[in-house]
Amino acid sequence: MIGERGPSTASDPADRAGATLEVDLEGVVANWRLLAARVAPADCAAVVKADAYGLGAQQVSAALAAAGCKLFFVATLDEGIALRKRLLTTCEIVVLNGPVPGSAQEFVFHQLVPVLNEPGQIADWAEIRRRHDRLPAMLHVDTGMARLGLTAREFARLTDELLPESATRWRGLISHLACADQPRHPLNDLQLARFASMRRHSGGLPASLAASSGIFLGREFHFDFVRPGAALYGINPQPRNPNPLCQVVRLKGRILQIREVERGESVGYGATHVMEHSGRLATVAVGYADGWLRSLSHRGSGRLGGNRFPILGRVSMDLVVFDVSAADPSLARPGAFIELLGDHYGVDAAAADACTIGYEILTALGRRCHRVYRGVPNQC
Amino acid sequence: MIGERGPSTASDPADRAGATLEVDLEGVVANWRLLAARVAPADCAAVVKADAYGLGAQQVSAALAAAGCKLFFVATLDEGIALRKRLLTTCEIVVLNGPVPGSAQEFVFHQLVPVLNEPGQIADWAEIRRRHDRLPAMLHVDTGMARLGLTAREFARLTDELLPESATRWRGLISHLACADQPRHPLNDLQLARFASMRRHSGGLPASLAASSGIFLGREFHFDFVRPGAALYGINPQPRNPNPLCQVVRLKGRILQIREVERGESVGYGATHVMEHSGRLATVAVGYADGWLRSLSHRGSGRLGGNRFPILGRVSMDLVVFDVSAADPSLARPGAFIELLGDHYGVDAAAADACTIGYEILTALGRRCHRVYRGVPNQC
Repeated sequence: MIGERGPSTASDPADRAGATLEVDLEGVVANWRLLAARVAPADCAAVVKADAYGLGAQQVSAALAAAGCKLFFVATLDEGIALRKRLLTTCEIVVLNGPVPGSAQEFVFHQLVPVLNEPGQIADWAEIRRRHDRLPAMLHVDTGMARLGLTAREFARLTDELLPESATRWRGLISHLACADQPRHPLNDLQLARFASMRRHSGGLPASLAASSGIFLGREFHFDFVRPGAALYGINPQPRNPNPLCQVVRLKGRILQIREVERGESVGYGATHVMEHSGRLATVAVGYADGWLRSLSHRGSGRLGGNRFPILGRVSMDLVVFDVSAADPSLARPGAFIELLGDHYGVDAAAADACTIGYEILTALGRRCHRVYRGVPNQC
Repeated sequence: MIGERGPSTASDPADRAGATLEVDLEGVVANWRLLAARVAPADCAAVVKADAYGLGAQQVSAALAAAGCKLFFVATLDEGIALRKRLLTTCEIVVLNGPVPGSAQEFVFHQLVPVLNEPGQIADWAEIRRRHDRLPAMLHVDTGMARLGLTAREFARLTDELLPESATRWRGLISHLACADQPRHPLNDLQLARFASMRRHSGGLPASLAASSGIFLGREFHFDFVRPGAALYGINPQPRNPNPLCQVVRLKGRILQIREVERGESVGYGATHVMEHSGRLATVAVGYADGWLRSLSHRGSGRLGGNRFPILGRVSMDLVVFDVSAADPSLARPGAFIELLGDHYGVDAAAADACTIGYEILTALGRRCHRVYRGVPNQC
């Protein structure tokens, strides 16, 4: 168990933290292994962009590298630089957003593989490769997202560039599915057909279409490597089916105060909740500044001693209030922790209550929470 | 202009950043001065909890301290330690959540003033003060939030503790309004009456009831000091009136790709937006992992060359797509910035589109954004 250290003080930051996010690295590794086994002989990369969806790119990447993952995806150049500097000297790190104008040199300096998404990035990279022999890059083609990646027409103009003897060493051809979490959506097969066609014109580049949800659309979506992110972190890749992956986060909030309230008293900002009975409230040191989204106001719940207690009123910036009237007073006391996310109320359940998706629940977390990692990388 | 430095590399992080958050420290200082002048002779503190609502507690606090602010409020002990270590050796730093059990010693070590919210915190503090003479603390009384603070009954039992000769040096008596942004809400006057009554029994402690919105409820709400947070950062404290405060943040996102699309093509995850006309899209390097909330999907807009362009489809983790069909192609090009937040589309406007409040827009920002500060502290 490794805790991230704050500034050195007399006490352990874990003891004084109001909100604690536990990340189960063994669970992340177990999820990666499950996915890797499912897609073999295709390779399984890991998407650790957005600080590994808020869970800590360095810790997650170290654990996955120790488990055998060799290919990592981040979104931005700065994420790639941070990952390369501290970790992973032997792994490939791919930057999905590619170079912004003027930044191609940085990819060389930090040994990062850019994804080239549009003609300008390809031209910038060509400038660089005149000075550096056979630099690897991935080519992104759009097959139905209309977000990043070459259009079919732009791709068709590029065929000379894709020959094995071209100056760029193309490390792969990738595309991204728009509706992979809806297995019957017609766009999935359309994107598959478009991608397969472009791949046939790519001179046999290693190809990748599937992220987490795409892995579960069938073997024909796996190609040469897959790029799961969400599934590593316990999000259900096919929401209508049972989740084959384990939960890897647990969010605990410390009770700061227990309060007896009378029927008719209002709770929180706007006085939007009025007590229908007298009872006991627990004010907990987690708020939307910790990523506990404000849209969980009046919704969501916490767990204490195995029982569920509802959130009352609005989530505020640093605090949230639970109705613990039915709790054992020896458990519901200042200093005790209420579990906000965990095995019994996972990321997807919180997302449903917050009217969003598990991805946003994860990326919102952890800015201020004290983080604890379970599962030391070199034991993986 | 000071940019936060990433790891040292050949290029400036500002040049390679996809998302940039500009914080106008002169604007923050101007807002503080406006509020301070409004409440004089009451004092004006500054609330810099949650990393100054996401904008950088150290930079904001340094600027405000240079402008004459002497009293700062944070939420958690760790926020207090960070602020004390790097800055503000001469200012008072007050921790709103108070000590969690076992952490009172840390307040002494770092010269932080705890807010004592409930009987257990008061008892813990009494233990500490036996070893340290006359330590200051603030007392929080609840007058209608039912969140933190002593109940009226708990307060009544405490009167002996409030005598001038008691061991604790009480630095102040505070409470917090639940509905201050609704000036006609009956709870405001009720909370005022309850607080005034408790203050009369406090032995003349310096008293504080108003945060940003409370300042605008009238002079009787000001007492001895006020504690604005949101208003410092440009949030309108009285949403039905014109905003007297200036905007202090500007969020810019870099265009990564310009794409021509045909009528009938779908855009983004879920294919939820279908183009009604052919046109041009700009894919921009800002997503919900940068705090651009996913609830801004299909809503909100960006500005380029003074004109407004709508968001199309869903906001994704690292990217958002704008319809720039009507933009000058020389402006809408890869590498250019689209303004997502600024003078023309402020924090409150974004909050309305995202179905939340400006506070959450601010605290969500800035986890991954490159931050730039305008207005050097020692010039304030």
